[in-house]
Amino acid sequence: MDVIDVSWGDPHRGGLKPLTFVRQVLAACFYPELVQSDKLPVDVKQRARSLLSACDGGSVGSYTLSDGISYIQCSVSNFISRRDGGVPSSPENIFMTSGSQRSLMLVLKLLVHNQASLPTGVLTAVPSYTAFKSALQTLGATVVPYYLDEEQGWAMEVEELRRALQASKGICNTVALYVINPGNPTGHVQSRKCIEEVIRFAAEERLFLMADEVYQESVFGEGSEFVSYKKVLSEMGPPLSHTVELASFHSASKGFMGECGLRGGYVELVNLDPAVMRYAYTIFSTDICAPVTGQLALELMANPPRPGDPSYPVYAQETQSIQAMLVHNMNWVPEVLNNIPGISCQPMMGGAFVFPRLYLPQAAIEKAKVVGMQPDLWYCKQLLEEAGVCVRPGCEYGQTEGNHHIRLCVMTPVETMEEVLKRLKNFHLHFLKEFS
Amino acid sequence: MDVIDVSWGDPHRGGLKPLTFVRQVLAACFYPELVQSDKLPVDVKQRARSLLSACDGGSVGSYTLSDGISYIQCSVSNFISRRDGGVPSSPENIFMTSGSQRSLMLVLKLLVHNQASLPTGVLTAVPSYTAFKSALQTLGATVVPYYLDEEQGWAMEVEELRRALQASKGICNTVALYVINPGNPTGHVQSRKCIEEVIRFAAEERLFLMADEVYQESVFGEGSEFVSYKKVLSEMGPPLSHTVELASFHSASKGFMGECGLRGGYVELVNLDPAVMRYAYTIFSTDICAPVTGQLALELMANPPRPGDPSYPVYAQETQSIQAMLVHNMNWVPEVLNNIPGISCQPMMGGAFVFPRLYLPQAAIEKAKVVGMQPDLWYCKQLLEEAGVCVRPGCEYGQTEGNHHIRLCVMTPVETMEEVLKRLKNFHLHFLKEFS
Repeated sequence: MDVIDVSWGDPHRGGLKPLTFVRQVLAACFYPELVQSDKLPVDVKQRARSLLSACDGGSVGSYTLSDGISYIQCSVSNFISRRDGGVPSSPENIFMTSGSQRSLMLVLKLLVHNQASLPTGVLTAVPSYTAFKSALQTLGATVVPYYLDEEQGWAMEVEELRRALQASKGICNTVALYVINPGNPTGHVQSRKCIEEVIRFAAEERLFLMADEVYQESVFGEGSEFVSYKKVLSEMGPPLSHTVELASFHSASKGFMGECGLRGGYVELVNLDPAVMRYAYTIFSTDICAPVTGQLALELMANPPRPGDPSYPVYAQETQSIQAMLVHNMNWVPEVLNNIPGISCQPMMGGAFVFPRLYLPQAAIEKAKVVGMQPDLWYCKQLLEEAGVCVRPGCEYGQTEGNHHIRLCVMTPVETMEEVLKRLKNFHLHFLKEFS
Repeated sequence: MDVIDVSWGDPHRGGLKPLTFVRQVLAACFYPELVQSDKLPVDVKQRARSLLSACDGGSVGSYTLSDGISYIQCSVSNFISRRDGGVPSSPENIFMTSGSQRSLMLVLKLLVHNQASLPTGVLTAVPSYTAFKSALQTLGATVVPYYLDEEQGWAMEVEELRRALQASKGICNTVALYVINPGNPTGHVQSRKCIEEVIRFAAEERLFLMADEVYQESVFGEGSEFVSYKKVLSEMGPPLSHTVELASFHSASKGFMGECGLRGGYVELVNLDPAVMRYAYTIFSTDICAPVTGQLALELMANPPRPGDPSYPVYAQETQSIQAMLVHNMNWVPEVLNNIPGISCQPMMGGAFVFPRLYLPQAAIEKAKVVGMQPDLWYCKQLLEEAGVCVRPGCEYGQTEGNHHIRLCVMTPVETMEEVLKRLKNFHLHFLKEFS
């Protein structure tokens, strides 16, 4: 039996095709002789020429400045401003990195003070993306957990933030709040109202806001839309719009592009003191520069073909087909999961993952204990061995005591997803029978 | 006046052309439809097909394992073994990273223990590559300086290592020795005899050897040859060959390829305890994976076209032309510099840089003090402003008290180098006149 791996958020690996426009431009940047070829659309050649002229020595093989290629910082900053309905964005606040995980680490280095009497704390959602917690541990900082409300579709609630912050007093010095919207692993998308409340809370408590918004292009749940923290903050007006410190993260790995292997991300830093910005530049400089291919991919994400461009029809067809797949899976996957006895799944509004809850029989929990594994990890192991489906266990992301989950990537072609759910259902029914 | 920048080791920026074979394969990997084209040589298409089939999902846009694409680890390991005359190399000891600076940092993380009563020390050459010292500082480790002997062409001497280690006793716990061969900024290349002595010293003192060998392809000084630490260690036989712990670093940024922007490097770890290797894997995993484009570039470096391959003639012509330029500059640049009054330059045997000494007039030194700058930094500033030549000051690399140097990259087309030296000479003569 072949193994189907829906444990990663890695679209190409899962069978999605790269976007033709992106790949044509990158190929022409690597081998500029292609710009002479009659095989490539005019706008592809022109874009490759513009990008190459923004690279030192006209080559993607040259180092760039530590914060990135200026031309691309400008493109990204225009993209942000368009996305946010005209809210200004400055290229000098954009730092290009080798991916959002690296950006998160570098921003954390700005915030974590190891010499202080209490360790630095960061409010972190439970469940949330594992790598963020590892980054905090690496830096000797403390995870200050706040729980998302599963019954409310994994909503983030300010009362819970307040409780978590209060509970951290005396244990650590909590200086920042990490938010991932759209959610990973939860698939939740925050409303404008929720974001406003979170910003107000951050302002009151003088917390630095880290907004991980890498799934911003993947919001297709009914009635949901993506609104950036930057936009909401700006629209809340002074004094908040000029004082709340914010870092917003994005990446070439997510969205329609899915170019994980190129390693490209950016972070926009908002409202930081000029002295802190200089320190940020020093910290980001330790990486020399972000991979040029990743930077180019971000430019193409920020500035895709538009109606009228020769590449537009193919681009539109390809992105619409990915979108149709996502819309379908976001509605359909939770529905199917909810129809399996012993599994419940919250509605999915955005991102790439669902995080259904497993109601495991007591005998299965005991069995897992005997082999020394977390029950949902043990479940995943059985699912892989018996049904050839690879998913990740909830224990990796954090969950309330006694509950169990799995995470599945739905950015997966529909026919593959059908096979995954069929195998999961058969396995799960058999599993329930065996242990009840 | 246009500025000529010979401060970086960034060949494409300096006007060198990328290798056609490398760029054709990469272009075809990005846009596999090119594999159908009749414009590309057969071996290029075949290589692109092999590389793509080694990528998950057949796309360079997929994540790879944290230590790299297995196929490329094998290629690199075969390359090492061929380079070292058959000394075995294991793919599982090769870790792919986003460049040698990142590899150095990750290996240092393996070695530095912050909880210990004394800070961790690493023996580090003076002068040497600035980024290494920054990495030590970032990790809270201590630089234990040993001085290279300028009068002996910047040779490394074991007596000096012994003195430095002795001097560090009680200040830090010195666990490793960092060597850069061929030298940066010095252009020195170590003899086999020197390497043997260094290895014996490391063994006696139980030091972990970090051999930065990124300039291994650029050794063209008369009578010099590159011999790797790995090869010498292996040929010294047991017990040393089985016990001395060694990390050897290489990169796609240096040598003929010069693909700095792609961010690709590898480190080979030798003789590490299996438990430490597992920990190494954990540390390297924090980067998710190295940029795929950088990994592909390393494969092409490890496995270039061979005689008989359709791409060979162009490849041979391009690399020979770079080699001819390097051979010329390595001999000619120090000669020209030595003919300028007040400058002396050691012979250059390898690498990309010369590091001539400046005999600055006392009045110039006083003047620099007045403006609060190191004398050679102030000299560089004047050189840039008055002659439009950008070089780096010796104070960045470390030098013995009261001496001053500059670093110039000679991996620069001959006509550019001629202009650099002409401007430098005119400026320097004028400078001497002004201050004496």
